[in-house]
Amino acid sequence: MARLDDLKNSPLFHDVPDEALQEALQVITERRYYAGQVILEQDAEGEALHLITSGVVRVSRISLGSRERVMGDVYAPGVIGETAVLGGGERSATVRAQTEVTTLMLYRTHFRQILRRHPQVLWNLSALLVRRVTFLNDELIAFGLNTEAALSHVFLSLYQQRLAAGVPNPEVLPLSTQDIMARISSSRETVSRVMRKLDAARMLTYTSTQVTLIDPDALEHVTLDEADVSAD
Amino acid sequence: MARLDDLKNSPLFHDVPDEALQEALQVITERRYYAGQVILEQDAEGEALHLITSGVVRVSRISLGSRERVMGDVYAPGVIGETAVLGGGERSATVRAQTEVTTLMLYRTHFRQILRRHPQVLWNLSALLVRRVTFLNDELIAFGLNTEAALSHVFLSLYQQRLAAGVPNPEVLPLSTQDIMARISSSRETVSRVMRKLDAARMLTYTSTQVTLIDPDALEHVTLDEADVSAD
Repeated sequence: MARLDDLKNSPLFHDVPDEALQEALQVITERRYYAGQVILEQDAEGEALHLITSGVVRVSRISLGSRERVMGDVYAPGVIGETAVLGGGERSATVRAQTEVTTLMLYRTHFRQILRRHPQVLWNLSALLVRRVTFLNDELIAFGLNTEAALSHVFLSLYQQRLAAGVPNPEVLPLSTQDIMARISSSRETVSRVMRKLDAARMLTYTSTQVTLIDPDALEHVTLDEADVSAD
Repeated sequence: MARLDDLKNSPLFHDVPDEALQEALQVITERRYYAGQVILEQDAEGEALHLITSGVVRVSRISLGSRERVMGDVYAPGVIGETAVLGGGERSATVRAQTEVTTLMLYRTHFRQILRRHPQVLWNLSALLVRRVTFLNDELIAFGLNTEAALSHVFLSLYQQRLAAGVPNPEVLPLSTQDIMARISSSRETVSRVMRKLDAARMLTYTSTQVTLIDPDALEHVTLDEADVSAD
């Protein structure tokens, strides 16, 4: 059964008892989205979470002045919407399909029931939240250092996510200059300057629509060095 | 019993069965720290977490070039060290006592046993992690907007924590200009300029060692407006 395999592949349902999987199968709904379609909307009630079973989504936040801040991309088999479902509040961001996307949708009430009945799912959720806290802390630190550190963090985390998702050419990141500006809240001039520098150091090459990492390991180390000597 | 009350006050042990509290009482150790003492050290193994029962700690990260980035303060009854204990990795930050501090220390192995046996503790931990993810997301957004938004986020979150902790004069924040620079990774010039602006708008007053919020509600709203019209 394809849905059962999809469930087992999700970090939320990894290594859980069959009983929990069977319960989840009763209440999940498969959803399909076209590229560009909104899956979750900022400021709407957080009534459901989605297990992404194929495709890529982009998480972003739009402020009143209509400036868009991209928070990151999530690849299958990632999870979206779980914090609003648990926290009980409104969604703080909009999630939009970047490609064709399929998900398994799980309503808040059903999810909470499964968590109460199956501590292993709750354990998986905690592990996922710990990884997210660690990631966000790393991002705050990188963004606070300088643009090199911020870009390196963005590129390497996207690369690692693409590797884990098993997509072809994980080192070719589908990021335009505009995407990068929206991701790190920097001006075109700053982004262009640092991209030229990383290109000259043979860390990466780039075009107006994508960034290709040549030496991810070096990118990681150079950034740490840069971060520590720069006064920014 | 004072320790039992301290446990019940901790967000981790809120509303848990007596059995879980009794188990925890068997394995916790009370620790005392003087102001300035290191409680958890960056890059050390994450072997234990602490429930803060009195006092205030500061979480910071020091990079090789010895630049210090302050990640935030935690007041009693906060929890520190739980992500390294769960994630199994090294600590990403140093935690230092700002005042005299007492904690209840819980080793990783004991904590994991309690989580496995008592899903309500795991539930509390998930709720705590969800709040932290939400907070870090808000911080990334505020820091990405402009210095006004960053300062407002820092001041308001500290104020709310002081309110919740029941400390006297919660609106008087013990932050020097140096502290603020280390918290938002900004230059003295930038911090001074924005502080003068917030002072002129009667949002706050400040000296070299503290910031006093005059109108927290207005601070929140002004910041949102600023954030949306400013080009940064």
